[in-house]
Amino acid sequence: MQLFFFKSINLSSMEVFFDENESYHIIKVMRKKKGDIIKATDGNGILLEIKITSIKSNKLIGLLLKKMNIKANKHSPDIGICIPKKTSRFEWFIEKATEIGIRNIYPIISHNTEKKKINYDRCKKIIKMAAKQSNNFYLPEIKNISIFKDFVVKKQKGFIANCSNIDSKKFNEIKLYNNPLFLVGPEGDFSDFEIEFAKKNGYVSINFGKQILRSETAAIYICSICNNANNFNL
Amino acid sequence: MQLFFFKSINLSSMEVFFDENESYHIIKVMRKKKGDIIKATDGNGILLEIKITSIKSNKLIGLLLKKMNIKANKHSPDIGICIPKKTSRFEWFIEKATEIGIRNIYPIISHNTEKKKINYDRCKKIIKMAAKQSNNFYLPEIKNISIFKDFVVKKQKGFIANCSNIDSKKFNEIKLYNNPLFLVGPEGDFSDFEIEFAKKNGYVSINFGKQILRSETAAIYICSICNNANNFNL
Repeated sequence: MQLFFFKSINLSSMEVFFDENESYHIIKVMRKKKGDIIKATDGNGILLEIKITSIKSNKLIGLLLKKMNIKANKHSPDIGICIPKKTSRFEWFIEKATEIGIRNIYPIISHNTEKKKINYDRCKKIIKMAAKQSNNFYLPEIKNISIFKDFVVKKQKGFIANCSNIDSKKFNEIKLYNNPLFLVGPEGDFSDFEIEFAKKNGYVSINFGKQILRSETAAIYICSICNNANNFNL
Repeated sequence: MQLFFFKSINLSSMEVFFDENESYHIIKVMRKKKGDIIKATDGNGILLEIKITSIKSNKLIGLLLKKMNIKANKHSPDIGICIPKKTSRFEWFIEKATEIGIRNIYPIISHNTEKKKINYDRCKKIIKMAAKQSNNFYLPEIKNISIFKDFVVKKQKGFIANCSNIDSKKFNEIKLYNNPLFLVGPEGDFSDFEIEFAKKNGYVSINFGKQILRSETAAIYICSICNNANNFNL
């Protein structure tokens, strides 16, 4: 069943409201009608079953039939990713990470990061579409851009994925904790200085075995492994 | 170190030859010169260390310095994937699967598969580029297009990934064997008939938990989990 995003609920009247874009999508694109039952989420774990009661000039109101709280996947990762040069690669990562499961996306500028801007509006649209597509009741957040050193000093626990084999663990040797944080390097990898700096600040260096994965591939690999670990506890 | 593909070796003279495209890439794009040492593979597990000895009008010959056999990842999957409607999604899958590790790609036409053609030349180029990029000494093969039923009858052991929860295992409940075979459904999933038909032919139905993954995302998820299992044995 298709998933939509609601805007607000009035619990006393049991009415559920949708914003104009979502109303348009439900009515015009998905051709839902008065009386139809739809599924909607707030993107924060709440899942509603709603009967459409009113459609007036692209404003849709529904009657709340059922309200559920969906448990978050406890291993959903936070990923700090150095912005790839090609926008399409970053957008692809956002789409796939949302499908598979990610909690927060932190775009990072490191020494070898050339691109320093992101189109947030576009990213948020991609996240919303991917969440709908994949039936994901938790909408990942895309945070403000951080400078590598500031980020590492602020968040002092995590894994730094890089291509070095020195004092580095393989991915499957590490123990995932709740919402683990991973840093993923740029084209040209993190610098030796950056890897050392992260280690001094509580980060564990990890690699992916023999392969050298592109930033967006490494990030999706991480999301897949974390999701699979989550499923052990479903 | 950048990886290249060699064409043939003459073991008596220790000479290594490259085809014209690869020679052009080494000389003109990577600006390698006589005397430089490069790394090359046949895409089938052989890794050579070569000293460039002759460059004549885009034909490059090298002297073999060292020859190694790189062990294949025993869990590298074979994936039968229903061709996605959008070419870009299929090409993206090929690139990422090659980076992470896949053995054979079988394009499949199932009941809900709309697209029935593939540009093989373009796919092979993407595979080669991704293998170079990721330092992968095993070049995945992209096989001829198969009809779902014929394929299932021919290869009677594997996993069929789909969105149904009926008599279906979660990905992390299955035991990976050597080069496991996975079937990945199209937009609109496999039909109930197809899932039953596969089960009758020795396939185990699997799903990814709550998420509904797009075909290409599911395929990459599978490659990531298999690669991570491989790494236990590195």
